[in-house]
Amino acid sequence: MNFSPAPELQTTLWLNSPKPITLAGLRGRVVLIEVFQMLCPGCVSHGLPQAVRVTQAFNHDDVVVLGLHSVFEHHEAQGSREALSAFLHEYRISFPVGIDELSNAGRLPRTMAAYDMQGTPTMLLIDREGHLRKQTFGQHPDLSLGADIMALVGETQSAARQRAAAPTESVTCDDIGCSIPPTGSTG
Amino acid sequence: MNFSPAPELQTTLWLNSPKPITLAGLRGRVVLIEVFQMLCPGCVSHGLPQAVRVTQAFNHDDVVVLGLHSVFEHHEAQGSREALSAFLHEYRISFPVGIDELSNAGRLPRTMAAYDMQGTPTMLLIDREGHLRKQTFGQHPDLSLGADIMALVGETQSAARQRAAAPTESVTCDDIGCSIPPTGSTG
Amino acid sequence: MNFSPAPELQTTLWLNSPKPITLAGLRGRVVLIEVFQMLCPGCVSHGLPQAVRVTQAFNHDDVVVLGLHSVFEHHEAQGSREALSAFLHEYRISFPVGIDELSNAGRLPRTMAAYDMQGTPTMLLIDREGHLRKQTFGQHPDLSLGADIMALVGETQSAARQRAAAPTESVTCDDIGCSIPPTGSTG
Amino acid sequence: MNFSPAPELQTTLWLNSPKPITLAGLRGRVVLIEVFQMLCPGCVSHGLPQAVRVTQAFNHDDVVVLGLHSVFEHHEAQGSREALSAFLHEYRISFPVGIDELSNAGRLPRTMAAYDMQGTPTMLLIDREGHLRKQTFGQHPDLSLGADIMALVGETQSAARQRAAAPTESVTCDDIGCSIPPTGSTG
Repeated sequence: MNFSPAPELQTTLWLNSPKPITLAGLRGRVVLIEVFQMLCPGCVSHGLPQAVRVTQAFNHDDVVVLGLHSVFEHHEAQGSREALSAFLHEYRISFPVGIDELSNAGRLPRTMAAYDMQGTPTMLLIDREGHLRKQTFGQHPDLSLGADIMALVGETQSAARQRAAAPTESVTCDDIGCSIPPTGSTG
Repeated sequence: MNFSPAPELQTTLWLNSPKPITLAGLRGRVVLIEVFQMLCPGCVSHGLPQAVRVTQAFNHDDVVVLGLHSVFEHHEAQGSREALSAFLHEYRISFPVGIDELSNAGRLPRTMAAYDMQGTPTMLLIDREGHLRKQTFGQHPDLSLGADIMALVGETQSAARQRAAAPTESVTCDDIGCSIPPTGSTG
Repeated sequence: MNFSPAPELQTTLWLNSPKPITLAGLRGRVVLIEVFQMLCPGCVSHGLPQAVRVTQAFNHDDVVVLGLHSVFEHHEAQGSREALSAFLHEYRISFPVGIDELSNAGRLPRTMAAYDMQGTPTMLLIDREGHLRKQTFGQHPDLSLGADIMALVGETQSAARQRAAAPTESVTCDDIGCSIPPTGSTG
Repeated sequence: MNFSPAPELQTTLWLNSPKPITLAGLRGRVVLIEVFQMLCPGCVSHGLPQAVRVTQAFNHDDVVVLGLHSVFEHHEAQGSREALSAFLHEYRISFPVGIDELSNAGRLPRTMAAYDMQGTPTMLLIDREGHLRKQTFGQHPDLSLGADIMALVGETQSAARQRAAAPTESVTCDDIGCSIPPTGSTG
């Protein structure tokens, strides 16, 4: 089976990290990205606490947890670095959080648009080779998430490389992002 | 037994209300005030949901629920009307919420200082005659809160007036706040 | 307003009490009775823990909490004194629990039948004068229960006696139960 | 790495199953065993609901969930088939549940003794080759459990067989149980 590469993150800023983070730089590790807005009740009560639990349950050499603040409403209230920084401080979120880049044209920030997300919270699960393996909107139970993550942890890099050899050729990345191959070619 | 009058609210603005609200204007009804900050986790997870439950459990002719946004940290992040308005919208809080007036001198907003609050969430319970009957910082169980409110609902206005006749004279309000009579005179 | 007298309890045995308990013996105090079965999931997860919280929230001079084990199914499994005793021990329930008396004729135990209960958990709330003031089947929120209990606590004995002088005469108890006066005479 | 074989279950009866179940008969599948007592509060509130969630989260071809009723106290109250049957009915537990065999000599039932369990709830996790891979007493989070199960699901039978070839020879089973090899030989 072939899998689609996860589009590269497009961010303007990272908090809780000394330097910008890219998916390309995390090859070899499983990556969970919690996409949220600080004024989204479901993110605050379920999505973010679950992401924190993941940081506690898995070895950091195997699983990296990131946050992505993808603001698509109430920009004045939650669109500033100060607001997000205060939020992360109060909710004691210590994993790196990137700010999804606003687009000029539309309402959706660029990474959110690239993944065709439905809203927040959205959870992205990316394998050791950088393929998007799961994308869920809303809540999902810990038991299944633990299983999903472990399935990816169990994939050796070599096995993943072997399996995914072909599709990686078809990805095209440029300074805007990595394009998602047409659906027909990824099944 | 005599009780201290509750200092009047000092606010700059009210949301979810067509006009400013004063405690004086609510005489005759029991008033619960949930003092919060939008980036205070305990307020979001416990204090505010409990205040919403109170609006559902009691008759509005007997019990009025108000919010008071008393910002004493992260002013840039949570100090604007836009931020609070977005927060109330997302968390579906429909009772009136006043913004506690910032003081020039210190860090604590004026109402928070007048009540000598320890932080957020703080719950104030005021009887039909305008006396402060309970002030709690942090969490308190629904069962006790329901009992506390009902005890005040059960006090008739006349009984309360009779009991409280003297102390109301001794209150002194100025532009800083309404002063609480010395402890010795309120037992 | 007149209220119906609460039918007297019909029990074969009491646990956590040195002697049998009767409602008549508790006049002057508010009584909450949690009617349950030890194999009823809703009783174990909600009803009984709530009853325990009531014992903690109210003064025992004002409010008495009792349990009533009203078995109407699985008699072999939960019908013995040993089973109930083990259950109370494991769940650390220390308030008195009576065993509702089985009837010869039907499936419902006698007290359950006398109150025309729908099932378990059922909560009975009885005022200081022995009138049944509330009977609820299933779950009910702590906030409302706290208010309901406090409303009864606030009734002075004399006031209650004055109000209830007439109806107490009309109660008729026999070996089946205490009959509830017709609805028309109790409003 | 070598792992210890899981001692065979010693049961007198199975509910929710047309015939007795043995670990030997489940080779090839991951087995989760929830060891409980019907009057154990932690089993009722946490252990058993978690086991039910496992049946919902995993494919039954990969993961088998069993219950084991290991009564070591209150035998009169919870020791009968009728009591357990009523309990399973009321709590809607539909996976197979075995009754751990009482020993003549001691207080601990035989399977409980063979695994040297500390009490209930205990969770046993057994791999496709019949090795005991995890044994936990008390509560453990869903996220980690999901990961633990998935790690075993991911092991192919052949890989497991290859890895475990040697130790299976050293197991000795008799009518008391299957003995666990000394610690020194299993690391």
